[in-house]
Amino acid sequence: MPVLDWLLGKPLASEEDSEQRVGVLTGVPSFGLDALGSAAYGPEAALTLLIPAAAAGIAYVMPISLIIIALLAIVFFSYRQTIDAYPQGGGSYTVASENLGQNLGLLAGAALMLDYLLDVGVGISTGVGALVSAVPRLQPHTLGLCLVILVLLTVISLRGVRENGMIYTVPTYYFIACMVAMLGWGFLKTLGHAHPVPVVAPPSVHTQHAIAAVSTWLLIRAFAGGCTALTGVEAVSNGVSAFRDPANVTAKRTLTVIVILLGVFLYGIAYLTRAYGIMATEPGTPQYQSLLSMLAAAIAGKGIFYYATIASVLALLSMSANTAFTGFPRLCRAIAEDGFLPRFFAIRGRRLVYHEGILVLAVLSGLILIAFGGVTDRLIPLFAIGAFSAFTLSQAGMVMHWRRERGRRWPLYLAINLVGAIATGITVFVVLIAKFTEGAWITVLAIPVLILLMKAVHRHYARVAAATSIKQLDLVPADPPVAVIPVSGWNKASQAALQFACSLTADVTVLHVECPDEVGEQTAGGWQRQLDAAADKHGKAHPRVVSVPSPFRFITTPIVNYVVRLQGEFPHRKIALVLPDLIATHWYHYLLHNHRATAIRGMLLLRGVSNVAIINVPWYLPQ
Amino acid sequence: MPVLDWLLGKPLASEEDSEQRVGVLTGVPSFGLDALGSAAYGPEAALTLLIPAAAAGIAYVMPISLIIIALLAIVFFSYRQTIDAYPQGGGSYTVASENLGQNLGLLAGAALMLDYLLDVGVGISTGVGALVSAVPRLQPHTLGLCLVILVLLTVISLRGVRENGMIYTVPTYYFIACMVAMLGWGFLKTLGHAHPVPVVAPPSVHTQHAIAAVSTWLLIRAFAGGCTALTGVEAVSNGVSAFRDPANVTAKRTLTVIVILLGVFLYGIAYLTRAYGIMATEPGTPQYQSLLSMLAAAIAGKGIFYYATIASVLALLSMSANTAFTGFPRLCRAIAEDGFLPRFFAIRGRRLVYHEGILVLAVLSGLILIAFGGVTDRLIPLFAIGAFSAFTLSQAGMVMHWRRERGRRWPLYLAINLVGAIATGITVFVVLIAKFTEGAWITVLAIPVLILLMKAVHRHYARVAAATSIKQLDLVPADPPVAVIPVSGWNKASQAALQFACSLTADVTVLHVECPDEVGEQTAGGWQRQLDAAADKHGKAHPRVVSVPSPFRFITTPIVNYVVRLQGEFPHRKIALVLPDLIATHWYHYLLHNHRATAIRGMLLLRGVSNVAIINVPWYLPQ
Repeated sequence: MPVLDWLLGKPLASEEDSEQRVGVLTGVPSFGLDALGSAAYGPEAALTLLIPAAAAGIAYVMPISLIIIALLAIVFFSYRQTIDAYPQGGGSYTVASENLGQNLGLLAGAALMLDYLLDVGVGISTGVGALVSAVPRLQPHTLGLCLVILVLLTVISLRGVRENGMIYTVPTYYFIACMVAMLGWGFLKTLGHAHPVPVVAPPSVHTQHAIAAVSTWLLIRAFAGGCTALTGVEAVSNGVSAFRDPANVTAKRTLTVIVILLGVFLYGIAYLTRAYGIMATEPGTPQYQSLLSMLAAAIAGKGIFYYATIASVLALLSMSANTAFTGFPRLCRAIAEDGFLPRFFAIRGRRLVYHEGILVLAVLSGLILIAFGGVTDRLIPLFAIGAFSAFTLSQAGMVMHWRRERGRRWPLYLAINLVGAIATGITVFVVLIAKFTEGAWITVLAIPVLILLMKAVHRHYARVAAATSIKQLDLVPADPPVAVIPVSGWNKASQAALQFACSLTADVTVLHVECPDEVGEQTAGGWQRQLDAAADKHGKAHPRVVSVPSPFRFITTPIVNYVVRLQGEFPHRKIALVLPDLIATHWYHYLLHNHRATAIRGMLLLRGVSNVAIINVPWYLPQ
Repeated sequence: MPVLDWLLGKPLASEEDSEQRVGVLTGVPSFGLDALGSAAYGPEAALTLLIPAAAAGIAYVMPISLIIIALLAIVFFSYRQTIDAYPQGGGSYTVASENLGQNLGLLAGAALMLDYLLDVGVGISTGVGALVSAVPRLQPHTLGLCLVILVLLTVISLRGVRENGMIYTVPTYYFIACMVAMLGWGFLKTLGHAHPVPVVAPPSVHTQHAIAAVSTWLLIRAFAGGCTALTGVEAVSNGVSAFRDPANVTAKRTLTVIVILLGVFLYGIAYLTRAYGIMATEPGTPQYQSLLSMLAAAIAGKGIFYYATIASVLALLSMSANTAFTGFPRLCRAIAEDGFLPRFFAIRGRRLVYHEGILVLAVLSGLILIAFGGVTDRLIPLFAIGAFSAFTLSQAGMVMHWRRERGRRWPLYLAINLVGAIATGITVFVVLIAKFTEGAWITVLAIPVLILLMKAVHRHYARVAAATSIKQLDLVPADPPVAVIPVSGWNKASQAALQFACSLTADVTVLHVECPDEVGEQTAGGWQRQLDAAADKHGKAHPRVVSVPSPFRFITTPIVNYVVRLQGEFPHRKIALVLPDLIATHWYHYLLHNHRATAIRGMLLLRGVSNVAIINVPWYLPQ
């Protein structure tokens, strides 16, 4: 326990809950890391797709960015309304299942789960990827670094949301400061001259490619790539209950700050990219440089400011997975409370966080990282689908909500959410088509599988509840059980078990397993005489000794077989299998004693022998 | 179970034991693999040390080999006597501890354990090393290949000794045939001319090194290296009980065959090495070629015969670890039966083999292989020390044996064993000094540590036996226990547990843990009313409901704390903690139910709350 206390912090009582809640200042890092980090790869993803169009493509950066920013604004207003309507935390899952029915709710839930899962893998590996391209010596340790960051994020998440926010506050605001400074400086330099001279010239755009026409299809694909800039925006509305009271007001303020910052970043990056004539470089080639790196170098030169900015991007990206660590467990809790995921997701742990969800997320994303060797950039387009499906379902749910609720100014609210639903719905469709062959089909396959699994879980719980429910508590009287004690030799442990069995019932059978290899054991006959004498002395019923042969030297099987036979003999009585259990007081003694009691218990359960209770009578070895 | 049957074979009854025993033909592969394989690295180890002496060194190959062969003869006659004296299997451990006392017995045991352990790692990695130097493409998979072979050997060993012998029969006799053919062919070519012309000339000896004088120290070190050729000879005497009746006669015949073959190999290799003027090459350099490879090429040219011979060497070396898999578990069994190793080593498994010993050997040697990345040639000199220490102690033990027994012709027998003890004792001393800085110090450190561990195990068992022993079985009458049932809600499982508790005792407490997060639970008061009504209906004692708060949402801790308190209230009565246990009938339902019963049980044992019996009342979910 002291180790856990040190690692995870002391247990927190439920009353301490409100102290664990976050304000705007700590809410931005806690719930906005992922959204803000998207600025680092969203615009770049759009530009990368425009590479074939070369210089001609740069002209389209601004229009595409403006569409994405408009989409961001629509999503923002929609989610503000969701926060007000669902102050307990209205993730897409909750909103969709309450308003659109179970199936669409599960669709939203599955989409978001996948989104979060990919987010962790992609966030960490993007951060580490940037780090190793800055320090190539670290290249061979890519996977190791990813896993170390994953473990750190997991431990920090298990400690709870408040400290969690505090840990991320510094890097987040440092990133914001760097971005604002860079964009501001770059903007000042553009005043007066339309084409400022870059301090460090970005790689020249290969004009021989310019023959590729700027087709509508290319622009659509660029837009689909840029949409990843919006992932993570839903995190705030998922976690309203984590905000300081009044939770909805604090949450809305936090969302506003995040969205404004993200909008400024997206606009600024697009504006300066065009101004400095910067084009994306092909990822995976030796010439590759990230967009933000080229931009920072063009504006400020490769001096201290450049490295400070790059460092802030690295820190933010590798930490952006934290948003998933905050969102995923809350989502799983909500789904588990409806009975569609195992119940343990709904139990809050010692630090008031849903630690099972955190651990599941850590293990699954760890597996993804290992499977991809820590290089997951091909997964980036996939998680936009999850995020936008959830957006759409959430907005559509809100539309139904307003139709039903009809409070003050409901037609306006309905209209806002309707616009949101349509805009994000079209986006899902566009991204799905544009990215289908690039991996979006995986999402299309995985989501139905997840939904089927969740439905199976729900069916199982319903069946169990039906099978175990009782109308009224009853106490039908029952005879004392028939007790069976397997004994290999008499000592204080087996004697204690025998005495306990005799205190429960008069029907006690001492079971001796005869192994061909065992020698020097007292025979069953000798035992019977000893037992008879001891029972007569206290005027008690005689326990009977039964010996069963075991030609295969198994111990567990003959005991279980005997119990099964006995059950046939006494169909209407419970059988109590009394197991003497010698308990070593030091862990390093564990190997020195057999663990037959555990093995017998396991095998009995496996055989499904009902009507048998298993009684462990521990006997502690002296220290 | 079907999987185990397929992998390991059907369980064998103890009466089938004699059918599992081996004759001479299968005994040679089963117990001689390691000894015969030594011919492949023993002479080479001696020659490698003579490299600094260059051509001058070749002159000393024959004398050194003759000394080693003489040593082999001495060891052979000594062990023949051991087999007769210990027909149950007289490993060095048994002989030394029976005749020289516990401490020297444990010394022999520890030395042999280390020897076997190193043997597995070295055998497999030498075989794989030869394979990858023949097929360089496999180089990156060295460790993987080692581990695959280790797993195969483990499974084969778990299947039991007879099939085990059959599997190794073909490669062993194939190796013997190749060696005999190669040595015979080579010998025929030397007839007539003292210096036959090699078909493929071995690498020329660098004469510029020849200035290094052939010092006594160099010769001693070469001898120490060559002694590894004798490792594995003790395996037969360890496993006499595995031979067909009359076991001692069969075992002696097997030993004779093995020793004669090994002697012929050693002599032949030495003779032909000198005849063809072959010198060892520096291991770890690109010019490196194994001695047998150079010899085969010189005699037969690099044709089909060459490759067939090399293949047989590879197969034999990688399988030579099997001797350790036969010997180690038997050794551990013998030590465990004396109480110096955990008892599970002494339990024969389903296939009449001591599978725990096999598994421990597999895991430990797997760790050695992983730690050394599958390249363990630096460990070769180490394991000669273990083997020769065991030889010496075994012979010394036999000397004491004859002094005590004094049967027919005992002075002759004593003399033979005395010569053996002195010769091998001197060898240990020589090897220890010659190899001390090259790693023999590890053995010198490891053996005492092992002995201390074994003594600690023995002390523990003695203490436990003293603490738990009873003079006479007694059945002191005891009151029925006080039963406690933790219940979180009423269903068939908790009702069944309650009814069982009521059948045992009239004192039943229903324990309710109040979690702040739980909602909709019926209060303790409501439960008490229901219980009272049910008890009144059948005229039984009223169970009482107790509610304990849990501000930290822990479930296990408050239950355990309550039990500890209750123990204070009823110091003279047993407490029975009755745990309702919902058992899923499909493994994939495992995650869907909490495992509180297991957790409570574990925590209670950890707290060492004596006087508490734990009763699991399983309730099986319908299929």
